[in-house]
Amino acid sequence: MKIHDIEGFPNPARIRIVLAEKRMESLVEFVRVNLYDAEHQKGPFREKNPTSTVPVLELDDGTFIGECVAIAEYLDNLDGNPILTGRTPREKAVIHMMQRRADHQLIDGIGVFFHHSTPGLGKANEAFKSADWAFRKQWGDKHGERAIAGMKYFDGVLQTQPYVAGDQFSVADITVWAALMHGDYAGLTVPADHTALLEWRARINDRPSVKNRSGQNLNAEDLPHLEPLLPI
Amino acid sequence: MKIHDIEGFPNPARIRIVLAEKRMESLVEFVRVNLYDAEHQKGPFREKNPTSTVPVLELDDGTFIGECVAIAEYLDNLDGNPILTGRTPREKAVIHMMQRRADHQLIDGIGVFFHHSTPGLGKANEAFKSADWAFRKQWGDKHGERAIAGMKYFDGVLQTQPYVAGDQFSVADITVWAALMHGDYAGLTVPADHTALLEWRARINDRPSVKNRSGQNLNAEDLPHLEPLLPI
Ligand SMILES: N[C@@H](CCC(=O)N[C@@H](CS)C(=O)NCC(=O)O)C(=O)O
Ligand SMILES: N[C@@H](CCC(=O)N[C@@H](CS)C(=O)NCC(=O)O)C(=O)O
Repeated sequence: MKIHDIEGFPNPARIRIVLAEKRMESLVEFVRVNLYDAEHQKGPFREKNPTSTVPVLELDDGTFIGECVAIAEYLDNLDGNPILTGRTPREKAVIHMMQRRADHQLIDGIGVFFHHSTPGLGKANEAFKSADWAFRKQWGDKHGERAIAGMKYFDGVLQTQPYVAGDQFSVADITVWAALMHGDYAGLTVPADHTALLEWRARINDRPSVKNRSGQNLNAEDLPHLEPLLPI
Repeated sequence: MKIHDIEGFPNPARIRIVLAEKRMESLVEFVRVNLYDAEHQKGPFREKNPTSTVPVLELDDGTFIGECVAIAEYLDNLDGNPILTGRTPREKAVIHMMQRRADHQLIDGIGVFFHHSTPGLGKANEAFKSADWAFRKQWGDKHGERAIAGMKYFDGVLQTQPYVAGDQFSVADITVWAALMHGDYAGLTVPADHTALLEWRARINDRPSVKNRSGQNLNAEDLPHLEPLLPI
């Protein structure tokens, strides 16, 4: 199997954590996609994933799987023991519900905020965004607001249970964790009074699969987006 | 089990089709949620599903499951034969990828367009939307554009294979079908040159689980949103 991604980015981190939790890292070859050059917007990559995002899983039969939720489903079910996506119908249901909320209310919104309300991945990616700056900022900010509301929602959830989908660590925790990492460098940080969410995050940071992963390749100095591109 | 929903609406239809495909309708009691009265925005419903949407599955142990993707996962796995969400890791991966694309690129966008660029569910729901009319229209229209692009994407997919996730009918077909039904009454119809998508739709319309479901309770005369609410 191959994974087309770029180290240090939040959605790629979701799958790298899944691989570490399942001890499957040695089964995978990583192929780097240069997002800064907008390589993901070009023909060869779009044939692999028409939505132009990483990560993408390439199976040995040549099938390409995009979308973290689908890649995680594949990897977690390979050994017949889906500890991260749920073993029983009820576990699967709760985990998929929380995973979908984490996608929709948190990580997707932060991504849109990052690409539209900040200079995002820099100049090479400008051509793929709206030239209507005012709307673009409103669009990004509105998604950012949704993500801030999502943080409050997950803080509430974690006031009543140790993990995002209940008593067990799952892909839903991985998605929320990756979203908060994304939020940090996009400028959407967890409010200090969300103590349940912050306490949970500290616990997740300590997992061997997660440790030292946060921002390892993504620090402010490295990012080309520090050169402001927005007129605002 | 109970399902809290409202007949004739697109997301509820997704789960009713799953139940029909699995021949599980007799296992479920339906409880009507009056969306026109914004019942889904009020306390008692929000305790069941904080995202204020239907359908919601209520398990006999009192657990509430929101999000169609999660409800379908539960129902399809109950009999140990998940024909709609995938039996092998590869099937699960492809179906979840296409299901997520159908959610993100199609049905979610049509929903936002419906609620923001048209009068949506009418007056009782106004309080839950932005009062910035111009932005609201832009927000809705941009989501509508994404859905139109999604139709083109799925037309391309269906030019090369009989079903959305390959050779077999799956939840991904159900989501695309429900999205197009939603599009019809929101005013986002499939362009006539998307012949593969239209041919596929005619085939899906003929399935016993789907037949006569389209718009049965949702015709223009019934909808309160015919009274224009938007100043534009
Ligand atoms: N829904 C996708 C999201 C993937 C995603 O947005 N990945 C980011 C990297 S963290 C990306 O490729 N961004 C490129 C862009 O949006 O231009 C998934 O679950 O895989
Ligand atoms: N992501 C949700 C979407 C559900 C949804 O949007 N349902 C509609 C009815 S078709 C709804 O409840 N709309 C009420 C509203 O948005 O105010 C799911 O998969 O269940």
